[in-house]
Amino acid sequence: MYNQSDLKELIEKALTGLSYNQEAPKLIDPVKYILSIGGKRLRPVMALSACNIYTDNITGAVLPAVGIEIFHNFTLVHDDIMDQASVRRGFQTIQNKWNLNQAVLSGDVMAFIANECFLQTPNEWLYKVFKVFNKAAIEVCAGQQLDIDYENQPIVNQEEYLRMIELKTAVLLAASFKIGSIIGGADDKDSEILYELGRNLGLAFQIQDDLLDLWGDSKIFGKKPGGDIVANKKTLPLVKAIEVASGSQLKQLKELFSQKEGETDEDAKISQVMTIYNDLKISEIIKETANSYINNAYSLLNKIPVAETRKKEMTNLVISLIDRKF
Amino acid sequence: MYNQSDLKELIEKALTGLSYNQEAPKLIDPVKYILSIGGKRLRPVMALSACNIYTDNITGAVLPAVGIEIFHNFTLVHDDIMDQASVRRGFQTIQNKWNLNQAVLSGDVMAFIANECFLQTPNEWLYKVFKVFNKAAIEVCAGQQLDIDYENQPIVNQEEYLRMIELKTAVLLAASFKIGSIIGGADDKDSEILYELGRNLGLAFQIQDDLLDLWGDSKIFGKKPGGDIVANKKTLPLVKAIEVASGSQLKQLKELFSQKEGETDEDAKISQVMTIYNDLKISEIIKETANSYINNAYSLLNKIPVAETRKKEMTNLVISLIDRKF
Repeated sequence: MYNQSDLKELIEKALTGLSYNQEAPKLIDPVKYILSIGGKRLRPVMALSACNIYTDNITGAVLPAVGIEIFHNFTLVHDDIMDQASVRRGFQTIQNKWNLNQAVLSGDVMAFIANECFLQTPNEWLYKVFKVFNKAAIEVCAGQQLDIDYENQPIVNQEEYLRMIELKTAVLLAASFKIGSIIGGADDKDSEILYELGRNLGLAFQIQDDLLDLWGDSKIFGKKPGGDIVANKKTLPLVKAIEVASGSQLKQLKELFSQKEGETDEDAKISQVMTIYNDLKISEIIKETANSYINNAYSLLNKIPVAETRKKEMTNLVISLIDRKF
Repeated sequence: MYNQSDLKELIEKALTGLSYNQEAPKLIDPVKYILSIGGKRLRPVMALSACNIYTDNITGAVLPAVGIEIFHNFTLVHDDIMDQASVRRGFQTIQNKWNLNQAVLSGDVMAFIANECFLQTPNEWLYKVFKVFNKAAIEVCAGQQLDIDYENQPIVNQEEYLRMIELKTAVLLAASFKIGSIIGGADDKDSEILYELGRNLGLAFQIQDDLLDLWGDSKIFGKKPGGDIVANKKTLPLVKAIEVASGSQLKQLKELFSQKEGETDEDAKISQVMTIYNDLKISEIIKETANSYINNAYSLLNKIPVAETRKKEMTNLVISLIDRKF
């Protein structure tokens, strides 16, 4: 069995070995750049790990897994345009290092480089795997749209919020597991379990991200807590707080989140919001939501009908995704 | 045999009948909009026409043909961002009617909607057809990159220019013919002839576009001649004129094309450039280049080893592409 670091190495090697169309080097330079500035390679590692449950020969899953990573980076490049972001993983974004047009066009070509990787799927699974990927790709676009829509919508309910993060984040993790398992030879029932496992993990992971921003250990995560509050980001804590608050607290919350970034005392705003959140026990409520997805994940992991020894590395991966420090 | 208008109708019907992910209507509205404001549907008609050479049952080619059209429109949406264009086919561009972010994101989803169409290719041809499409898609991105690069490059030679329009325009026409022929059952040799036919037609078509801007009948084309001169666009007439001019004419040409749009008397500039072009017999030289591609096209058309009756509509299509009024 391969462990996570073996799998990451396989992915890095395959990424470095990719051959590109050579006709327009300026098109490809930003692609190489964005793929070289790191990232956890979480999705392709998930795909290979799911494949490895079913078979020791995971070669056929490597390029489709790389395709998922390239697609994911494509979404980051274009998200950075939409967010006017200047930094990604501690490095300049493409539109900052080059320009907006370059970020559009080099982003675009990544979508087709991802296709090229998926076209290397062993023929037996080509249609099935490509379908799973492409459905997820369309859903990720829909999730990004909902994220944009909700920025301008005064109130977002929990159901809407969860569906948004499901589309924007969880479905691609789900697809990664499913694609790997299909190429490993899993039957439809098994690959559906893997999909659901990835979906639940994705939701738990994203909800934990919202929690970490507020109650995370800044020594570990290197970010000052409360960034989401300052940016007025719709997060599950806010969505939930608006739902359970009433009277003066609700009024105060709405007033605080109508203050624009840069036009307010950030520390005071964070502290006032946190007082309300703590008063409403938002952290506990949200942890319960995250835990329900985590419990689903563990029960799905148990459901995969293979020997425990074959699930060992997958179990480690699930734990590493879930066991984050608060 | 289907004639061009039958084929266009089939395409329009399939486009209207497409079903979209319903989760984020704001994502899809611009897609429906851009696909509804017309266009000649040239590429999908070419694909179906090539299929129809080999078989009367062209059903299996309809969705891949639609995929080509959606991909083509995807490139238009993102090209309009890069050109900061406000009008497309007489209607507002997406970034003008909505905004830049919407044009990025709705453009993106079109790439995956195109994939979805290609995934409907009959299984026997799926890999082959998708490969041909995807290679062309990457080349179109490379062509757009070269177009951007050449804008800032003082001198572009004829070889560079021709390769740029080949990538940007001709390879997708070539791929359209090839894809249709594959699904029709053509063997590799035939489908390569069809590819070459499309490539030569694409080059001839694009070169004629440059000619029409300068010597076209403005009553027919509804555009004031010389728009490319005012915009300092690198076109084949300019590339050729820089190549053959010398002395004071070369100096004058360079001076004229260093004048920025809006900072000069447009009519005077057009008339001075045209005097040089006419003096250098640029129109005749360029027509010769176009004719060499047209001759290639006709000889390739003759090479397709099927009965003349089966080539009748394809011949009409080729003529309609080539026989443009000057």
